[in-house]
Amino acid sequence: MNKQKILINGERLKETLERFADFGRTENNGVTRLSLSEEDRLARDYFCSFCKELGMSVQVDDLGNIYAILKGKEDKPPIVIGSHMDTVKKGGRFDGILGVVAGLEIVRTLVENNITPQIPIMVVNFTNEEGARFEPSMMSSGILSGKFEKAVMMKKTDVDGITFEEALQTIQYTGNEESRLKEATAFLELHIEQGPILERESLAIGVVECVVGMVCYEIEVTGESDHAGTTPMTMRKDALFAANDLITKARQELGTLDDELVFTMGRMNVSPNIHTVIPNKVVFSLEARHKDPAVITQVEEMIEGLAQLSSEESSVIKVKKLWDRDTVWFNKHICHLLEQSAKSLNYSYKRMVSGAGHDAQFIASYIPSAMIFVPSINGKSHSEDELTAWEDCEKGINVLLETALVIKPE
Amino acid sequence: MNKQKILINGERLKETLERFADFGRTENNGVTRLSLSEEDRLARDYFCSFCKELGMSVQVDDLGNIYAILKGKEDKPPIVIGSHMDTVKKGGRFDGILGVVAGLEIVRTLVENNITPQIPIMVVNFTNEEGARFEPSMMSSGILSGKFEKAVMMKKTDVDGITFEEALQTIQYTGNEESRLKEATAFLELHIEQGPILERESLAIGVVECVVGMVCYEIEVTGESDHAGTTPMTMRKDALFAANDLITKARQELGTLDDELVFTMGRMNVSPNIHTVIPNKVVFSLEARHKDPAVITQVEEMIEGLAQLSSEESSVIKVKKLWDRDTVWFNKHICHLLEQSAKSLNYSYKRMVSGAGHDAQFIASYIPSAMIFVPSINGKSHSEDELTAWEDCEKGINVLLETALVIKPE
Repeated sequence: MNKQKILINGERLKETLERFADFGRTENNGVTRLSLSEEDRLARDYFCSFCKELGMSVQVDDLGNIYAILKGKEDKPPIVIGSHMDTVKKGGRFDGILGVVAGLEIVRTLVENNITPQIPIMVVNFTNEEGARFEPSMMSSGILSGKFEKAVMMKKTDVDGITFEEALQTIQYTGNEESRLKEATAFLELHIEQGPILERESLAIGVVECVVGMVCYEIEVTGESDHAGTTPMTMRKDALFAANDLITKARQELGTLDDELVFTMGRMNVSPNIHTVIPNKVVFSLEARHKDPAVITQVEEMIEGLAQLSSEESSVIKVKKLWDRDTVWFNKHICHLLEQSAKSLNYSYKRMVSGAGHDAQFIASYIPSAMIFVPSINGKSHSEDELTAWEDCEKGINVLLETALVIKPE
Repeated sequence: MNKQKILINGERLKETLERFADFGRTENNGVTRLSLSEEDRLARDYFCSFCKELGMSVQVDDLGNIYAILKGKEDKPPIVIGSHMDTVKKGGRFDGILGVVAGLEIVRTLVENNITPQIPIMVVNFTNEEGARFEPSMMSSGILSGKFEKAVMMKKTDVDGITFEEALQTIQYTGNEESRLKEATAFLELHIEQGPILERESLAIGVVECVVGMVCYEIEVTGESDHAGTTPMTMRKDALFAANDLITKARQELGTLDDELVFTMGRMNVSPNIHTVIPNKVVFSLEARHKDPAVITQVEEMIEGLAQLSSEESSVIKVKKLWDRDTVWFNKHICHLLEQSAKSLNYSYKRMVSGAGHDAQFIASYIPSAMIFVPSINGKSHSEDELTAWEDCEKGINVLLETALVIKPE
């Protein structure tokens, strides 16, 4: 039968995750560890000393990304495991940090079992994935992959006017551009699902096939402000009522396109927003996500068509596309290996998509990449209520460990 | 046939209205003359000197209300004509001031025609009708009629923290409580319609039968915030979608109650109002106005019933009544006289209701009161675009003059 599996130590994993949660733990047992904050610096320092104790060499690039390398038998491009340590304000104890700790625990398990991996293993912490302090999110992986311009990103400011560049210098995590992540055999990112699917289906592991494409629109409905008491219903151009009808129509049409399509009107602002005045303007966002570009195209056609519902007699509808992004497919071979690992460990799993963005989607543009998810209880994330069972964290890391040992350089 | 009518001088009326518009005129030919501001003080000073020139005696009460009296042949309770001189920010040249100038022009016309009225005519300017600087609106008429407590109102502050009491002292318009408006034969208020009905129906005069009753609710829909990308549509508790359905239902039900019912959702706030997050809360106002209390009762039953649409699976709906006010009916006899005056002057007119609040609705509680409206072009008010044809202003005042000459003390 199978040889004895090498597994991580679940109890120690829990301790390590809780140790990292101390860097910014909130009263409600969440974490506030904004990118490049003092809490982030302390977590980084701890991470670096942890890695050095394990015999790894640590490098920092010009974006503050940290790379800790465990040598392999062969000097080949490494297998990279990691994620991010920053959180949103009042975030949770798992988002991001789980993927970094996964790398640490894998290395620790190898080291204590006296196993030298075939090729190097690199554990990475990407700076500012959340974009909670400095927009945009996935900033550093975006620069690494050429999506964002470094010069522009360095000038991004937080609410206090501090630039990303200044904050990097303040916590003394400005390294060399030569240290940036370049060639690698694979990039593996373990992350909490941030959605309810795995929990609802009682599955331990999600093998992520892609990060779905999305499109985001802003829709503006203009009517006319009149006195709420003196204007008969038939003589009104009520922007809120027009927006209400428009949203109903959009929901009906989008609802029939595809079961996997998700769409959200998350932001809505009403003007002048006074109870005695008929609204003259309603502006709302409409974003939709799906892996299939053909479905996104249908969404776009539907939304663009809404503008044609404008009429002289009632309200004027304007539709503006704010941005879109294409579906990013992960490396098929690595997805297969992850699936095989889950199977060989007797963990329940399914293939799924990611509706949220992750560093791996940018890294995938130049390194064979893949992700796995573990269940989020009640689907919560970016919240102090964020929770994943310790056992599921452990299973996720075991899948990564198993996979890391079988990936071969090209 | 009829004796020769006494009519006001239309050209001079226009000059007088434009003269008052100079006190706070904006670049777009509107007026900003907030209550008890320097502009208000200058307008008040001009009003007082104007009245004194006409041989009237001028008194100021403890609320800054100004009363100018033209003696009559008999020393009976006066016929009171007036409105307010304050405006909202960037308001118009007609709202309020028209009703005050109506009194001035009536007195001026009588004086230059050497007519002494049978009973005294009093021209009144009520302080702070708009409530734009100090809430609530109709503050002084509210105190006069016992709706509001003076001690509470005196402590009301503007955005700079200045109290109503301090502002009164600053412009030196604090008089004696004994001067307050008490017994009177009638109160007549001419006002712009602030709605589109008279203009649409090509009528010059609206004889206002009542100020309609209203009810104002706040409706809160609570769902659950989740990630817009990772939460399948079937697993969402989207507060915005729930509010959307609720508004559709409320519009349908309210729309069938009565043609004269008006209802408005003027204010709506969405939380957290981020495009990537499913809204967990939507709060909106719902106000409705109708002259018939039975219709308002039906509205209340309908709105209260909305809370029963709450469900564990989707969203929780809470309904809170913020306030209501009953319909105020004006004096039937005076309404009849106003109608007769319009008829005798060959002006087109109709009986109508007021959807907006006016000082007359409070004064009506202790003095026989009535109002007439003149057309608002495009129904606009509380706006620099506010406009009423000079000819219609003139007609409105002629109706008041004609009526003032026939009203008899009890």
